Amino acid sequence: MMTPSTLEELIEALRCLPGVGPKSAQRMAFHLLQRDQPGARRLASALGLALERIRHCEKCNSFAEEAICTLCRSPRRDPTQLCVVETPGDLLMMEQAQCFQGLYFVLMGTLSPLDGVGPKEIHLDRLIRRAADGVVREVILATNFTVEGDATAHYVGELLREQGLKVSRIARGLPVGGELEHVDSGTLAQAVLERREV
Amino acid sequence: MMTPSTLEELIEALRCLPGVGPKSAQRMAFHLLQRDQPGARRLASALGLALERIRHCEKCNSFAEEAICTLCRSPRRDPTQLCVVETPGDLLMMEQAQCFQGLYFVLMGTLSPLDGVGPKEIHLDRLIRRAADGVVREVILATNFTVEGDATAHYVGELLREQGLKVSRIARGLPVGGELEHVDSGTLAQAVLERREV
Repeated sequence: MMTPSTLEELIEALRCLPGVGPKSAQRMAFHLLQRDQPGARRLASALGLALERIRHCEKCNSFAEEAICTLCRSPRRDPTQLCVVETPGDLLMMEQAQCFQGLYFVLMGTLSPLDGVGPKEIHLDRLIRRAADGVVREVILATNFTVEGDATAHYVGELLREQGLKVSRIARGLPVGGELEHVDSGTLAQAVLERREV
Repeated sequence: MMTPSTLEELIEALRCLPGVGPKSAQRMAFHLLQRDQPGARRLASALGLALERIRHCEKCNSFAEEAICTLCRSPRRDPTQLCVVETPGDLLMMEQAQCFQGLYFVLMGTLSPLDGVGPKEIHLDRLIRRAADGVVREVILATNFTVEGDATAHYVGELLREQGLKVSRIARGLPVGGELEHVDSGTLAQAVLERREV
């Protein structure tokens, strides 16, 4: 009513961002128009460029500007180890932890039959082909420890073992610096179950 | 490093939004590219359109697509009352409260000498001219009860009174449903100072 329609449309459009409700969207729109028009211009063009140029790496399925991404092309990575993660964000977390020198495959989702997401939707055939390149020896499943992530790891693990590949799953347990008193009982139970001899 | 440069630029550009840090910007960028490319397209075009079309209403200084906004053109509003607010968001709040039938003037900021924002920067000359149209009889100052908002109200009030206009300030006090136990002492002190006979 009091808002011009292009401004209303901008507020509505900002709500496609995760975690942005009507109030924040309004605040963002006002901020951009009132205080940061260069920022708004930059955001519009960054969105346009990203939509135009970003595609999926043919090898790891993560976001890339070229057919094969820089990580997959790097000669410094160990091609015998393949780590399977759910999202490009998870890949970044792994890289930031600096604990893995191999290559990745990004599922871009998890199996979720109730939502109609089956093996086809997350391109599991591509993962199987990728893992069966004759160079990969071990596949490390680093999907989340959620119901969907676990189910996906289980399903993917079965398929890959059939191909004669070594398959492992990242460990569950207490976080570094974690105290027994503050950890949930499910995590504690898993930590006991998956205890290691020292 | 592992992120394509257009994706990095999108993450960087998203940080111009208020309240968006590096982590949220990354989550937003991944969300848009992975799950909501139509939303990203819509946002890019909404930003473009808003930047192109939105300007300031010549009468009230709020955002508008036309020279004079719909509110200022409405024959149902009382042109003898002019309410001064800091931002278009404040104007919307006033409208949602449905407590005011007059017209508005939006300062698009407050006086803040330390940040180099003086009377010129917030176009106080335009407000003075607007209020001196011969129709406005009362100016209601509805700037925030912050140091800057109070200083602005004080300064604007002086100028308008010199023009022979009636000037008022919205009331400070306890919020509706407010309990003495939970209100800050400054607000309580003001509520006592500005008490009304009943």
